[in-house]
Formats: sequence, structure tokens, C-alpha cells
Amino acid sequence: MNRRKLLGVSSAFLIVLLGAGRTLAQEVSPLAEELFRYHRGQDVFFMLMLVAFLMLFIKRYQWGIALMTILVLSASFPLYFAVRTMYFGHSGDIVTIILGVVAAITLVIACGMFLGQIKTWHFLVVSVLFVPAYAFNEWFLFTYLKGVADAGGSMLVHAFAAYFGFGVILALRNKEVQEAPMKATVHSVSFVWLASMLLWMLWPSFTSALVAPDKVVSVMLVTYMALMGSTLSTYVLLSAVQKKIDPLIFTYAILAGGVTIGSTIDLVGPWVAFAIGILAGVVSTLCFLYLHPALGKATGVFDVMGVHNLHGIPGILGALLAIPFAGTVQITAAAGTFIIALITGWVTGVIVKALGKPVCNLDDEECFPMTGFRTSA
Amino acid sequence: MNRRKLLGVSSAFLIVLLGAGRTLAQEVSPLAEELFRYHRGQDVFFMLMLVAFLMLFIKRYQWGIALMTILVLSASFPLYFAVRTMYFGHSGDIVTIILGVVAAITLVIACGMFLGQIKTWHFLVVSVLFVPAYAFNEWFLFTYLKGVADAGGSMLVHAFAAYFGFGVILALRNKEVQEAPMKATVHSVSFVWLASMLLWMLWPSFTSALVAPDKVVSVMLVTYMALMGSTLSTYVLLSAVQKKIDPLIFTYAILAGGVTIGSTIDLVGPWVAFAIGILAGVVSTLCFLYLHPALGKATGVFDVMGVHNLHGIPGILGALLAIPFAGTVQITAAAGTFIIALITGWVTGVIVKALGKPVCNLDDEECFPMTGFRTSA
Amino acid sequence: MNRRKLLGVSSAFLIVLLGAGRTLAQEVSPLAEELFRYHRGQDVFFMLMLVAFLMLFIKRYQWGIALMTILVLSASFPLYFAVRTMYFGHSGDIVTIILGVVAAITLVIACGMFLGQIKTWHFLVVSVLFVPAYAFNEWFLFTYLKGVADAGGSMLVHAFAAYFGFGVILALRNKEVQEAPMKATVHSVSFVWLASMLLWMLWPSFTSALVAPDKVVSVMLVTYMALMGSTLSTYVLLSAVQKKIDPLIFTYAILAGGVTIGSTIDLVGPWVAFAIGILAGVVSTLCFLYLHPALGKATGVFDVMGVHNLHGIPGILGALLAIPFAGTVQITAAAGTFIIALITGWVTGVIVKALGKPVCNLDDEECFPMTGFRTSA
Repeated sequence: MNRRKLLGVSSAFLIVLLGAGRTLAQEVSPLAEELFRYHRGQDVFFMLMLVAFLMLFIKRYQWGIALMTILVLSASFPLYFAVRTMYFGHSGDIVTIILGVVAAITLVIACGMFLGQIKTWHFLVVSVLFVPAYAFNEWFLFTYLKGVADAGGSMLVHAFAAYFGFGVILALRNKEVQEAPMKATVHSVSFVWLASMLLWMLWPSFTSALVAPDKVVSVMLVTYMALMGSTLSTYVLLSAVQKKIDPLIFTYAILAGGVTIGSTIDLVGPWVAFAIGILAGVVSTLCFLYLHPALGKATGVFDVMGVHNLHGIPGILGALLAIPFAGTVQITAAAGTFIIALITGWVTGVIVKALGKPVCNLDDEECFPMTGFRTSA
Repeated sequence: MNRRKLLGVSSAFLIVLLGAGRTLAQEVSPLAEELFRYHRGQDVFFMLMLVAFLMLFIKRYQWGIALMTILVLSASFPLYFAVRTMYFGHSGDIVTIILGVVAAITLVIACGMFLGQIKTWHFLVVSVLFVPAYAFNEWFLFTYLKGVADAGGSMLVHAFAAYFGFGVILALRNKEVQEAPMKATVHSVSFVWLASMLLWMLWPSFTSALVAPDKVVSVMLVTYMALMGSTLSTYVLLSAVQKKIDPLIFTYAILAGGVTIGSTIDLVGPWVAFAIGILAGVVSTLCFLYLHPALGKATGVFDVMGVHNLHGIPGILGALLAIPFAGTVQITAAAGTFIIALITGWVTGVIVKALGKPVCNLDDEECFPMTGFRTSA
Repeated sequence: MNRRKLLGVSSAFLIVLLGAGRTLAQEVSPLAEELFRYHRGQDVFFMLMLVAFLMLFIKRYQWGIALMTILVLSASFPLYFAVRTMYFGHSGDIVTIILGVVAAITLVIACGMFLGQIKTWHFLVVSVLFVPAYAFNEWFLFTYLKGVADAGGSMLVHAFAAYFGFGVILALRNKEVQEAPMKATVHSVSFVWLASMLLWMLWPSFTSALVAPDKVVSVMLVTYMALMGSTLSTYVLLSAVQKKIDPLIFTYAILAGGVTIGSTIDLVGPWVAFAIGILAGVVSTLCFLYLHPALGKATGVFDVMGVHNLHGIPGILGALLAIPFAGTVQITAAAGTFIIALITGWVTGVIVKALGKPVCNLDDEECFPMTGFRTSA
């Protein structure tokens, strides 16, 4: 063997070595990727719990909302997980876990629309009916359609939640509940502030949960910039229109930037995201101020938590804002999500309505008596 | 040198290189392992703080419980850390930090049993007496005994906490306190919901804190499935027995899945975990409903926070459920934990009792006057 | 080519290989470093939100404080980010994001000092004026001066916040607000306990946000030990002086260990940190008890939230405690920070005062009417 050959072999080794070094600098091992996702996935569980506290402002519903949240999570996650792992042969890896909790958080948001209108155990029925509907829309968006941009879930989560919920209340039409007075207190609203601010802070873990490791930090920046945009525009618009700040609009609409940026989360830079957030805050606030009462009159049903104002319209807006990047498939995707959600929600509502009206409508005093086992010796 | 030899050397290099590549895909560097543990360890600190809020429902104890929690953490952690690093020569690495906060959280849970029955500064005395007792049981479980399965702390944390606390109240027998009325309010109970739901969400960080990196995600899945099981079974059982949901049973018993799965966390799959969780929820709920009053009558002492119902019985159950995997050493381990905890707790109680009765029993109004330095100019 | 040469080359390869192996064990890839920082950075956002809840105890200010917090974050972060990336050419990486949120949290702390004394929209003006002042001090500490020890922000964050805020109230001198009665409630104070305990738990993410990966765990240990020290000494001192525990002193002063350890976070071991924490708790508690009223009398202005007692003096103390490690540059740094903060704060106050007095002083009842869109159908 001569020197040249040896050098050739040596060089090959060196190239492999240096190449490995370069790759290592820009990548993380598959196990590390899993472990980083563990934390972002857990943050999504955190957010799911906080969605309950975002809706905790009506005094007599406080505990009912928390109960509903943990129940539908516990019913929908195993079901979704079973379908994915048993039927489609996925393994129980972190991506499957995250897809499961994303499905569950969508359901929790949707349930905000008909809180108090159905019996508590009916939420278990809703969970069973929701999972295949959601899975069908997931398939429609990412398998049937090609090239849909929705990494942060504007359509998959937010729009689907809002229109599924709308479908349910259209079928229920529980006037009795809708006319019952709802009192908020200083402290119940303080929980809403807490939930809103922590959701705001956690949002990047939601939008980056499934993106590639090298995109996580830029998604974080883009998400925060969008949320800052919607926070500022919500404040300015509410100040201009109302002179004062309604906390039950403000704490919701400031999150609209996170909802709307969902479809373009990995496609835009921080300043475009800031602009999108400003737009989202304006749109969501206008929905709360004007669309909400108009829609209530037009449809005769009442979206208790304003889900449509935060998740519905801003979700659809987010989908459409990705047209410059992904093309008109976004329109098909948004329209399809709207139709699938509305119809499956309506069917769910019809089925649940047939199961009978609730007696106590999640009212804490009626439904949650403290039996006193621990409040007396 | 001939070509064959060179090829041999080359191959050896290649094998090393490829081997390194394969390893890298399935492993993380020791530093990365430390940094991932940093976050799970911090989550355990998070959980320790939340245990206070899980017990915050009795209006007049609210601030007293929070004070006790941060005090016993600050007293027991440095002591445990000193023993481990100075006496046993461990370094101040992340595993030692996690072992320290796990000891502290066990103490906080135990203190829930005799809240209001001892003076505040006595909690510092309890901390000093607790650390060697806990360390002795830790040695018994993992050094004296061989092959004990308890990665998620069913015995080390939950059972030990419950029976140490029980030992203390058996010695104290402070009737006065036990007969004082305890009022809960809507808002104090809302904090309990918050704490319970966040503990639920954080639980995988507790059970996976010390497992190998490649087991973390499966432990996450198993933990969540167990918690979902106990959430569903608690709801169904309470609905069946009480028709309505007592929030002060529900928010506790839904966590029983996390307690009971502790010993088998790295040994079972998600569906077995789901089944274990269902069983744990049923057992814990039955303890709250039937064992609690019976035990109170039989022993004459009152477990204020229901620690025994959530941590005691479900902890022992978890230990025994690992028998198929670890053998009958689990019985020895559970029985030993029970005896060590009860005796050391009882001795602690006797010593504290000798220090004198409390005057104000952690009552917020009496113990925590706002001196007004900031509430008036 | 002879065997020796080949062996030489082989050895070179082996050294490279083994070297890479050793390095891998002690390092993480740049991408992994970014991703670990993602989580610590997000924790700083978490802490920023919690600072609001630490100040939520005055019933009529609850929502106003939350609103202020999210507004000044949304105004100051993009501004700071724009200056850094556009003017100084930094990229939007995780370090820049963390530097941005550290600037924002400093502003939130500062605003605690003049809460209720300026109109809500004036906080946006303050944000715009704050960013260049803060950036100037940042430049002064780490570019103009050489070798300043302040990895955990004793000066950069805490002292700057306190004296900037002090400058503002010196200029405002809004007596009307300072004499208005401030009522705290059991539940508003429970939020303070929650915020204090979660800030305590999250603190290591703040102090370790920008240190090298291999120092993160030791910074965690040092931070927790300092916080445990200040918790114990605050308890002992308050018990000795007041017999009872004022929650609005205790929940603040227990954090002083985290403030004071900031400058020596990467320079001392756990037991020195514990001692520094004990000292910090004593100093902060004494400030609350004695300096606070004296300073109020001497200056005629009133530090509503006690920012000076937790962040001002303990921040300066932290800077000076690093003299044995970094030399007398610490004195220059602390004095410079004091002067820069006080002057820029005073100028800010003068400008804001010229914009007019507030009508409703962040009072929730006046400023945040619930318009009832969702509390009636």
C-alpha cells in the first residue's frame, strides 16, 4: 500500500469525523429530541389544566368546569391513544402522547361552549363522540390534503374546537341555562388573569411541540411576538372603544395572537408575527364587542365562554394568513375543518340532547356539596 | 505493513465510529442527562409547593399551611444534603438534589396529618427528627433489602409520609384542635382544584426523576394513564355512591393512580397502568368514604387532610402490586416502611408533645396579623 | 509507509475519537444548549407573570397589576429586541430572547413602586423610556466595566429595578394615592403566597439562564440553598421581633436570598450560599421593619410594594458580597447602577407627571367594569 492510498483512507476518516462533529453541533440525538419534547408535551398538559381556570369566572360554575376538564382529558386521551396505537400501529412514543393531549385540549376548549347545558356524565359521552370526529379532521388536514400549513394548530385545534362546540349548542338550544344569571367575583376573575397569563407564557411549548428541534427557538420568538402584538392591540382598541378595560374580554383577546399565528408559526419572522398578532387582537376584540351579541341574536344560542371570539374567527384567520406560503389549499382546509366540526358537533349535540336535560347545570352549590367528612371531627 | 492489516485497522475505526453513532442515537451525554434532570427535579420542587395548596381549603389554616411547607423544606433539605455529602461523601450533583427534595416533599405530606396541632416552630423540630428517620427507611429499602421495586416512590414517599404522620398524631392526641370547626370557602377550594390539577400534570416528573433517560417517556405515559384511570373510577364511584361529587374527596382521590403506580412505574405498560389507576381510585375513594371515619373512631385521632386515604393505603397497595415483578421482598419492604414510619413518627410526636401545646393552632387570624406596614401610608 | 507512521496516524485518530468522546460526556451540542435555555428562558417569563401575583394583595389593585404586567412586557420586549437585533446586529437567538425578558422583568419589578400613581397608558410611556435606560446600565456593567460579577442579576435586575422605581416616585410625589386606604383580603394574600412559593421554586432558572451548561446544576443548588437560608432567617427574626408572622413581610423577605446571591451565584459553594441567604433574609426583614417607615418619612414618598426592601438593599448587598472574588469593581458597578437607575427613573417620573394625573388609580371597580357581555344572555 502506498502513502497516497493511506492518505485517502485517512482523509475519508477525517471527513466522517468532522462531518459527525458538524452534525452534532446542529442536531440532538433522537433520545434528546424525545426528552426535550417530554417537557413541551407536559407544558401542553399544563395548558389544558389552565384552560379550565380561564373559564372559572362564573362563580357557580367554578368547580364544575374543573371537574369537566379533568374528566374529558381522562376519557378522550386513552381513547385517542388506543385508536392510534392499536388501529394505526403507532408506538407509545412522545409524539403520540403529544397528539393525544392536543386532541384532549381541543375537546376542553369545545366543551367551554356548552358548559352547564348538559349533565356531567354526558361529557364522557361527548368525549367518546369527539375523538373519531377530531381524528377524521386530523386525517383530512394532514393525510387527505397535501401541504397544509398548520404546525401550531390554528385549524386543527382552535377552529375545530369552536365550530364543534357551536354545532353542539345549535343542537342543544338549552334556553333555560342561557337565561340563568351568572355572577363573577373579584377572586374568580383573579383566577382568570392567572390562567390567561400562564397560558400566554406557555404558548410556545404548544406551537413548538412537534416542530423539528432546530426550529423550536425561532417558534418561541415568533409566538411571543404574536402574543405581544395581540396584547397591545387589544389594550388600545378596548381603551378607544370602551374607555375602560373589561377583564373578561381582555384576558381572552390577548391570547388571539397565539391562536392566529398557529398556521404560520414556522413560516414567518418575529416582526411579521408581531403584525399578525396586532391584527389578531383587533379581530378577536371586535368579535367580543360586536359579533358575539349579533351572532347570539341571529342563531338564538349563546357561546358562554366566548370560545368563538378567541378560537373560531382567529383560528380561521390564521389559516387564511398562510395562503401566501402554502397556497389555496389553506382555504380548502379551513372550509373543511369548519364543515366537519360543525356537522360532527351538531350530531353530538343531538345525541346528548336525547339523553335528557341536566338538573343542576354544574352549579357548584347543588352539584358539589362538601359532605363535611373533613370539616368536622 | 500490508493492505489486510490496514483494512483491519480501518475496520476497527469504522466500527468505533459507527458504534459511537448508534450509541449517540439512543443515549444522551452525562451533562445532558444532568440538565434534563434539572427540569424534572425543579418540577418536584413545584409539586412540593403545590402540596401546600392542596391542603389550603380550611379557611383559617391557609397561610399557616403555606408557611409550614416552605419552613420544613428549608430546614430538612440542607440537613439531608449535609448528611449525604458530608457523612456519605456524595457530591452535590442533581441526583443528590432530587433525593433531598423527595425527602422534603415526604415531610410536607406527613405534616398534613398534624397541621394545627403543634406550634409553628415545632415544625423545625419535626424536620430535624424526620430526616434521620427517612434516611434510615431509604437505607432499609434500597441498601439493606435487595431488588425492591419502588422507582416512583409508593413506599419511600407516600406510605412513609402517611404512617410517620399517623405516628405523630397517635402520640399528640390533641383533642381540642380536632374538635375545632373547620370552614372551607368557594375560593379556598378553588386553590385545591388548581393544586390537584397541576400536581396531576406534573406527576410524571416525580416518577421519572431518577429513572434512566431512555425510560422517561414511557414512565410519563404510564403515569398519565394511571392518573386517568383513577380520575375516571373516582368519578364513577362517587357518582354511584353519593350521587354528587364532594370536591374534597374528588380532588384527592384522582391522584391515587399516581401514588399507587409508583412501585411499578418502570415495569408495566400503559394499559396495565390504566387498570392499576382504576383500582387505586376505587380504593382511595372507599378509604375516604368508609375507612376514614372508622379509623378515626377506632384510634381516636383525626387525619385532618386525609393523608392516609391518598398516600397510606394507595402507597401500600402500590408496593404489593409489584410482587409479580419483584417478588415477596415487596411485602418485607412495605411492612418495614410501615413499622419504621409509625415508630419514628410516634417518637417524634412524643418529643414534640413534651415541648408544649400550641396557643393559636396556625389560625391565620391569630397567627398572621397583617401589621399594616404596607396597607397604610 | 512503515508501521510506525501508520501507528502514528492511527494514534492521532484514536486521540481525536477519544477526545471527542470525553468532550461529549462533559458537553452538550450548541443546539441542545439552546433547547435547554428555551426552558429556563420560559421559566423567566413564568416568573415575570408571577411578579404580578406577588403584588396582588391590595384588593382594589388586583386586576390593574396584572394588566400593567402584561402590558409593559408586551411593550418593552419588542423594543429591547429591536434595539439589539437592528442596531447591534444580534440575531434572534435564545440568549437575545432571555436578555429581553430579563429587561422586561426588571421593568415589572420597578413598576411595583408606583402602581396606582400613574394612568394605565402611561405604563407604555414608561416602557419606552425604561428600555434605553436599562440598556445603558447593561452596557455600563458588562461592556464599559470589566470583570463585574453579576451572573444572577443582583445589580442588573434587582438594584436597577428598585432605584429606577424610586426615581420615578421621587418625581411623582402623588400624595393622594399614597394616603388612600389599601385593603387586603385572605384570598388576595393567598395569591401572594402562591406567587412567592412558585417564584422561590423557579429562581434557579433565572440565575442559571445564561451560565454555561456545566454550571447549571451547581447554580441550582447554590440558589436553593440561599433561598432556604433567607426563609429560615426571616422566620426566626420575625418570630423574635414580632412574635407573629406578617405574611406581607414573610412572603417577600424569604426571596431575599435569591436576590442577594445573584452576583456570586457561580462563585460560591452551597454552604456559603446558605450563609449569604441567612444574611439576606435578616437584612431584608430589617428593611421591611425599620428602614421602610424611616425612608418613607425622610423622603416623603411611599414604596407601595416594598420593592426597595426586597430588591434594592439586598441587590446592593449581593453586589458587595462579590468583592472578594471580583475586586472593587463591584463597588463601582453598584454605585453606577444606583446613580444611573435613580437619575433615569427620576427623568421618567418627571415626563410621566407632565402627562397628567390618573383619575382612577388602577382601582378595579372603577377601571375594570365587567360589561356583562358574558354574564347575561
